[in-house]
Amino acid sequence: MRVLAAAARRTEAGLPVFNLAAGQPATPAPEPVLAAARRMLDEQVLGYTDPVGIAPLRRAIAAHYRDRYDLPVDPAQIVVTTGSSGGFLLAFLAGFDAGDRVGLARPGYPAYRNILRSLDCEVVDLPCGPDTRYQPTVAMLDGLDLAGLIVASPANPTGTVLPEAELATLATRCADRGIRLISDEIYHGITYPGPTTVATTCAWSTDRTGFVVNSFSKYWSMTGWRIGWLLVPDDLVDTVDALAGNLAICPPAPAQYAALAAFDATAECDGHVVEYAANRQVLLSGLAELGITRTAPADGAFYVYADVSDLTDDSAVLAQRLLHEVGVATAPGMDFDPVDGHRFLRFSFAGSRGTIVEALAAMRAFLGR
Amino acid sequence: MRVLAAAARRTEAGLPVFNLAAGQPATPAPEPVLAAARRMLDEQVLGYTDPVGIAPLRRAIAAHYRDRYDLPVDPAQIVVTTGSSGGFLLAFLAGFDAGDRVGLARPGYPAYRNILRSLDCEVVDLPCGPDTRYQPTVAMLDGLDLAGLIVASPANPTGTVLPEAELATLATRCADRGIRLISDEIYHGITYPGPTTVATTCAWSTDRTGFVVNSFSKYWSMTGWRIGWLLVPDDLVDTVDALAGNLAICPPAPAQYAALAAFDATAECDGHVVEYAANRQVLLSGLAELGITRTAPADGAFYVYADVSDLTDDSAVLAQRLLHEVGVATAPGMDFDPVDGHRFLRFSFAGSRGTIVEALAAMRAFLGR
Repeated sequence: MRVLAAAARRTEAGLPVFNLAAGQPATPAPEPVLAAARRMLDEQVLGYTDPVGIAPLRRAIAAHYRDRYDLPVDPAQIVVTTGSSGGFLLAFLAGFDAGDRVGLARPGYPAYRNILRSLDCEVVDLPCGPDTRYQPTVAMLDGLDLAGLIVASPANPTGTVLPEAELATLATRCADRGIRLISDEIYHGITYPGPTTVATTCAWSTDRTGFVVNSFSKYWSMTGWRIGWLLVPDDLVDTVDALAGNLAICPPAPAQYAALAAFDATAECDGHVVEYAANRQVLLSGLAELGITRTAPADGAFYVYADVSDLTDDSAVLAQRLLHEVGVATAPGMDFDPVDGHRFLRFSFAGSRGTIVEALAAMRAFLGR
Repeated sequence: MRVLAAAARRTEAGLPVFNLAAGQPATPAPEPVLAAARRMLDEQVLGYTDPVGIAPLRRAIAAHYRDRYDLPVDPAQIVVTTGSSGGFLLAFLAGFDAGDRVGLARPGYPAYRNILRSLDCEVVDLPCGPDTRYQPTVAMLDGLDLAGLIVASPANPTGTVLPEAELATLATRCADRGIRLISDEIYHGITYPGPTTVATTCAWSTDRTGFVVNSFSKYWSMTGWRIGWLLVPDDLVDTVDALAGNLAICPPAPAQYAALAAFDATAECDGHVVEYAANRQVLLSGLAELGITRTAPADGAFYVYADVSDLTDDSAVLAQRLLHEVGVATAPGMDFDPVDGHRFLRFSFAGSRGTIVEALAAMRAFLGR
């Protein structure tokens, strides 16, 4: 966040910024979504909706699970949320009590730990590295007393995918041990050909004791609209329904009506993924030419998480220098990993090809290679 | 909420519903806001924004305080939120710890107590009745050990206004005793001529130890857009800034860009208030003809909170019968007051004149008067 603020100040000062820091697509919402948004401005009052979302959107999301995952989901177990952020808050409040211990991969998305701590839950770090593709394993749960486990596949900041069998094993072990699994699937749809990335699997297991968190932000390129959803476990449907209204009244109505058209935008969204794949190639090759080769397997999402410890012993300082000296914004690893993050930088390739090419040239100048 | 769901089921079944239950204007967002929304769909990516809101909207809100309240507010102390709901969550998390005791008027807006309890704060009821216009007084704070006090003026469900001098006295006493004052001002702009309602005062006191919560939902008729703001006390600016990003990433971008035009819509919004004032007259006269005269002073907002204990000893049953027998939806008092609410119903006059006239006719038939 500090990098983004500093980058914004540079932009205001008229200085160039090549932004590889934010998980922000260069594209607006897909055309069918924008068309639906234009219609709704003429046709809808856009007042309060049902706290768990308008019925047609919940049905459309259920149809998405049927069509894409061959998975039957009852719309009554789908709760539309104010982005995945709204979903995490609801899931954590409904699923955990103050003092509960919740495990998560380190490195990981910083809001997990920050939201959990603001709710007085205890964060249990699961240190993950290249040997487990930066993902938690069943073995890591041994001997831990946990109320919950958060997994993300594809993950942020690493982009790595949990292979189907491993996710299933984790889900089964969590169900057996009464650990509430929270599966962050907001990067589903954005994966790249490779040995482990044949398919991303929905963690909505048959016993349905965990939560699935998803969002229209990434694949559907709707970050600022703040619209996502939860799949809610059987035993918490009433709790989440009651909490949803009290915490937020309802998710944003404009985003709900607009998102109704998102499932008609598969061609356009898959086109974005083709662009991301090309960006990824350019970025990985360019980093390799700069000697930055120790990267997490970028299976999905739009990030390269790179070990830069041969360039610096403090990646936050490197990130600062890259921004101030040549205008390249990156995310320092400490944002994602308070212990080992000083060795890492996260490079986002969600932006335009031109930004990535220019950022690489600027980094080449900076590094003198 | 149960009434609204039952009303929705009646509508789906093709049965008539005269909705006096929801605080939902019949109008969409004002025309300048809709025009700004149409433009932004063409011109903006609508990606993530600054977690505390786009700078021009924070400046516009500061200008609103200068123009309307003659009050200087630094835009750095304005945090744009996802409706007032997002504001309450931020204020409670930043201002209170688990176990803290927070006072609030009973009857009051139910989300206050429900959000506080979900954060493990203790709710301290301040029973308020006609003798104090259903508002808390300084005397009620005597002997209470409180970390916070919530006031709302105009209030929900009663519509009563705290006179300027009383609000100032409450604010001073809270500041002296280290009680964090949270002033809910979301109904500002919607008041009716009367002895106590000359002006609604912003509680942003000179020492700035409390929060002000406001929203574009009511006066600006933008309920479903989910956009509001906080005035944040000096000592909590950094805390709230950090929490805002972690809890929500940012408020909805479409609502932010649209709300930029809200301050150009005063004529249209004041026109709505003229309509509400006429609705209020029709509703108060109609209720009086039905013998319902023991109502809270409807100084502002768009509610009449009526003591119906000569009609029923359980207003929830009365509300159910009114809906099922003649299609009139009202909000039972127990939603706002878990102790004395069984004697009360809340009637909203935010809807259209026609709805109110038809609802009164249906109630006349029901009561046989």
